[in-house]
Amino acid sequence: MRLFEPVVINGMTLPNRIVLPAMVTRLSGEDGYVNQDVRDRYLRFAHGEPGLIVVEAMSVHGGRSGPLLRMSDDTFIAGQAEMVRALHDASPSKVAAQIIHFLKIARSGWRQTVADLSHDAIADIVRQYAEAAGRVRRAGYDAVELHMAHAYTLASFLSLRNRRPDAFGRSLENRMRVMTDVIQSVRREVGGDFPVGIRFDGEECIKDGYTLNDAREMALRMARLGSDWISVSAGGKFEDAILKPGEPLYPYTGYSGDRCMPSVNYPDGANIDLPAGIKAYVNAAGFATPVVATGKIRTPELAESFLETGKADLIGMARALLADPDWPRKVRDGLSDRVVHCIYGNVCKALDENFKKVRCVLWPKGALQAPLVHAGTAPSWVYDDPNLVASHVAGRIQLKWNHANDDLAVYGYEIHRSADGGPYIHLTSVKGVFFVDDDVVGGVRYRYRVRAYNPAGLRTPDSNVAAIAMPDRVRTAAS
Amino acid sequence: MRLFEPVVINGMTLPNRIVLPAMVTRLSGEDGYVNQDVRDRYLRFAHGEPGLIVVEAMSVHGGRSGPLLRMSDDTFIAGQAEMVRALHDASPSKVAAQIIHFLKIARSGWRQTVADLSHDAIADIVRQYAEAAGRVRRAGYDAVELHMAHAYTLASFLSLRNRRPDAFGRSLENRMRVMTDVIQSVRREVGGDFPVGIRFDGEECIKDGYTLNDAREMALRMARLGSDWISVSAGGKFEDAILKPGEPLYPYTGYSGDRCMPSVNYPDGANIDLPAGIKAYVNAAGFATPVVATGKIRTPELAESFLETGKADLIGMARALLADPDWPRKVRDGLSDRVVHCIYGNVCKALDENFKKVRCVLWPKGALQAPLVHAGTAPSWVYDDPNLVASHVAGRIQLKWNHANDDLAVYGYEIHRSADGGPYIHLTSVKGVFFVDDDVVGGVRYRYRVRAYNPAGLRTPDSNVAAIAMPDRVRTAAS
Repeated sequence: MRLFEPVVINGMTLPNRIVLPAMVTRLSGEDGYVNQDVRDRYLRFAHGEPGLIVVEAMSVHGGRSGPLLRMSDDTFIAGQAEMVRALHDASPSKVAAQIIHFLKIARSGWRQTVADLSHDAIADIVRQYAEAAGRVRRAGYDAVELHMAHAYTLASFLSLRNRRPDAFGRSLENRMRVMTDVIQSVRREVGGDFPVGIRFDGEECIKDGYTLNDAREMALRMARLGSDWISVSAGGKFEDAILKPGEPLYPYTGYSGDRCMPSVNYPDGANIDLPAGIKAYVNAAGFATPVVATGKIRTPELAESFLETGKADLIGMARALLADPDWPRKVRDGLSDRVVHCIYGNVCKALDENFKKVRCVLWPKGALQAPLVHAGTAPSWVYDDPNLVASHVAGRIQLKWNHANDDLAVYGYEIHRSADGGPYIHLTSVKGVFFVDDDVVGGVRYRYRVRAYNPAGLRTPDSNVAAIAMPDRVRTAAS
Repeated sequence: MRLFEPVVINGMTLPNRIVLPAMVTRLSGEDGYVNQDVRDRYLRFAHGEPGLIVVEAMSVHGGRSGPLLRMSDDTFIAGQAEMVRALHDASPSKVAAQIIHFLKIARSGWRQTVADLSHDAIADIVRQYAEAAGRVRRAGYDAVELHMAHAYTLASFLSLRNRRPDAFGRSLENRMRVMTDVIQSVRREVGGDFPVGIRFDGEECIKDGYTLNDAREMALRMARLGSDWISVSAGGKFEDAILKPGEPLYPYTGYSGDRCMPSVNYPDGANIDLPAGIKAYVNAAGFATPVVATGKIRTPELAESFLETGKADLIGMARALLADPDWPRKVRDGLSDRVVHCIYGNVCKALDENFKKVRCVLWPKGALQAPLVHAGTAPSWVYDDPNLVASHVAGRIQLKWNHANDDLAVYGYEIHRSADGGPYIHLTSVKGVFFVDDDVVGGVRYRYRVRAYNPAGLRTPDSNVAAIAMPDRVRTAAS
């Protein structure tokens, strides 16, 4: 598979094409230092051996924003360096640090915007990015990623909503000015031989926001400035965030948050047109800058197809690796059937929205990290005949099945469904022995099967197949 | 061109593949009867000879909503019949009526939702659709289109936000229940030989809304129920509408409104993945139901490519035909260079949002209809050398040129731009002799040329080419 071919990026060899994008954890203290929970989180990811781990955003300016890593002065370097050494000792994964600048928000709902920034304040931001990038290099990271996506300062300059009347707003060139200055000053600081990647939105997904039209030009500018990768996200903006009285405004709560982390109702690879359009444009202009695609890419087949059809150079997987950090090594080693599948229910997103430590709902109750289990005995069924029963209840399909046994504990039950004789697809996973399928239509014959799995992803045999035809309202002349 | 090949839909022969989608005009009185302004609007469209004219939504229940046509009792038939006769006399275009049910909204911001409807109220809606469809046939229309898109009752049942706990909500099948009943009862009323089309959203484009996943199933259901076309829109929802104190909530004011009528910042054909995905799914299931694509399709080349690549069977153009109702006949007759181009500035949308009569900003000041002019003399230049001057001003490009003469009046000036030696593309049109281009990036050499046109689309020769290179911030080590 191309997915497991190494790739060299400005002297940095990734062992495969899988990228863990920066994901907020809320595990650090308010002081911004690396702590044991943060180290454990990334060590767990490293164990799975993705090509590149991008450690969560750390602030370049020391701005307060709850539990968030900082890289705003030299005192943060030692703790970061210790973590990076541990990651390198544990794994062939390369490790980048994402650095971020954000503006002030208040519980009143007020927020500072780029329109409020003086020219001096803008110059400070440019300098802070460069200094923080220098610290990232000194901490032993393999690379740095500049956060220019979502609701944060550099993205807000890029935004089509940036109507500053001076040289920093309104026209596309002016909106790219701070981005341009930051990339150039970072490059001067870290030197030509240190990989510098960028994360930005391929589409803002808000009213009057920019679309792929502008994003292609931004990406081309990034490529011309010698950026070493371009990681494409979407949405995640303040402009459509839902205000909760008494809480600071939080991006990702509106529609643009849905588009940033596409949930169960989105097609797989929902945002692929963005990296694909950007890559085509940048490549056509003569640049080979690697483009990272993200957004509900969950199967090896889909990831591989995006690489094969030239829609992306690297595949970002955030929630899929949160659910199972060992996705890369399992798939590489031919153990795809042991992957613990993300259900895209966005409990992780909800935890983040509520300022709680980010974990996966599939993990054992209370666990702060994905379990590190590779062996054990597969669960077995307490098998009645039939084990699984499906019934039609008021326009839905209800499933019930028997508990399984396990050497540790049953970690969950996967539900697989086939529609009208098509392939079985992982529908969702649940902790209990009951599920109601709302995603059904009349006239279709559904087949379900269930399997229990342990924390290592070892599975029971499939249950019996429960077949059920939804009553069809088309042929019966009703009403 | 395929675009101008006739197509037969359930016995109705469209002379070409161009569809005028239903567009609110706000020209009728509050009484819901056809008046002279309404007749004039559709006669003007008919003069351009699109394959199918879909007359704006008329209410099936007589609900009050400002100036809106009604088909809620037999008294409305005579006026409608008179208009349809006039349209048929004037044009080979076929004529459909779109029928709609909507719920109540109040100036307080309150709105009725589908959760509020009793089973009897739902049965009334189903009956009202059938009765109104019967009236459409009796009025002499060639077809009826059922409005199931945007913010209206049937779309709200289809919505993923419909969490009714009974047989009309939550599961996909239950959400399709009213749609299914309506299509079946309409078909019983109008008979098998009367074309019945449907307009619906391929994606809701709101938080927790449905996406193409569900839309494909809805379209398949429509096809199985014998719908004669499926016209695909997007967004246009209440859920993200912006509340103006003292005004009833109006859909299309939020992000989903942007997606419904993609503006200048969207790529051409911005929504094509929706009809394309729907058509592929419906065709794969063995149905040939024609699919109409809409959403900023403005050039003959793009329209044709969508037909050739099987992304659509018919091409819907709303704003492009509002700007120039004669687009179809001009393109057909090889007079593409006389088309008056829509600038996608959405002034028409803003008029609608503000409850004003909908017109095109390109039309002469105060005119309620597009001018009906096919001859005259092309404007000529009052030509200085140079006529057009471009200059770089603070990260933008400013254009100035000389006034042109015209036998009637200069209708406007088209600005065409080439980037780095690429083809000239119509950037926008303006009424004055001054324009600032914000959509520019450093390092690119832009070439502009301008031409004035009269109401018939007859043009001056191109102005001189004004070439200007935007200063490039990449090579100069700044900051």
